[in-house]
Amino acid sequence: MAPLFHPSRDDITLAGVLSALADPMRLRIVKGLMEQSDCMSCTAAAPCPDIPKSTLSNHFRILREAGLIQTTKKGVEHRNVVREADLNARFPKLLKTILASAE
Amino acid sequence: MAPLFHPSRDDITLAGVLSALADPMRLRIVKGLMEQSDCMSCTAAAPCPDIPKSTLSNHFRILREAGLIQTTKKGVEHRNVVREADLNARFPKLLKTILASAE
Repeated sequence: MAPLFHPSRDDITLAGVLSALADPMRLRIVKGLMEQSDCMSCTAAAPCPDIPKSTLSNHFRILREAGLIQTTKKGVEHRNVVREADLNARFPKLLKTILASAE
Repeated sequence: MAPLFHPSRDDITLAGVLSALADPMRLRIVKGLMEQSDCMSCTAAAPCPDIPKSTLSNHFRILREAGLIQTTKKGVEHRNVVREADLNARFPKLLKTILASAE
């Protein structure tokens, strides 16, 4: 399996972040991850239980490649966490403001 | 010519706004419009002078249909203004925070 791609902090772009969050499902995934103190598996972070795995995995890939989440393989699971420090360093208050708008 | 479509305040969605702003050119257009006290024509609000008119008009259509700008026909010109009050009512601080991130 190919290693998972994560952009470096400096390569995270505003257009990429906005585009990745321009989807209600992905907004809910990020919100869900933010409310956890620990990493979450893709299935645990799914906004509803009946989303096909391929759809879910596509959403996580888009979030990861835009620099919104960090994914770590743990056995057969992928564990995810929001890259809050990187995002806040690049775009202060952006993530918080967008998520507040999603309420 | 068909009348220009503008969504009502309540029909402006977060995903639509983020998607419309997920483009460096459109971010610059909105930024330019915000810095003016008055409406601007599409040409005057263009971020650079050599953008084809069709490209520019497509960017303005996307911004308009997402509820970011209000366009009024004035003779042969289209005059544009950012729908700040509507956007701030729907998503407090969102536009300002995104534009600050674009600096």
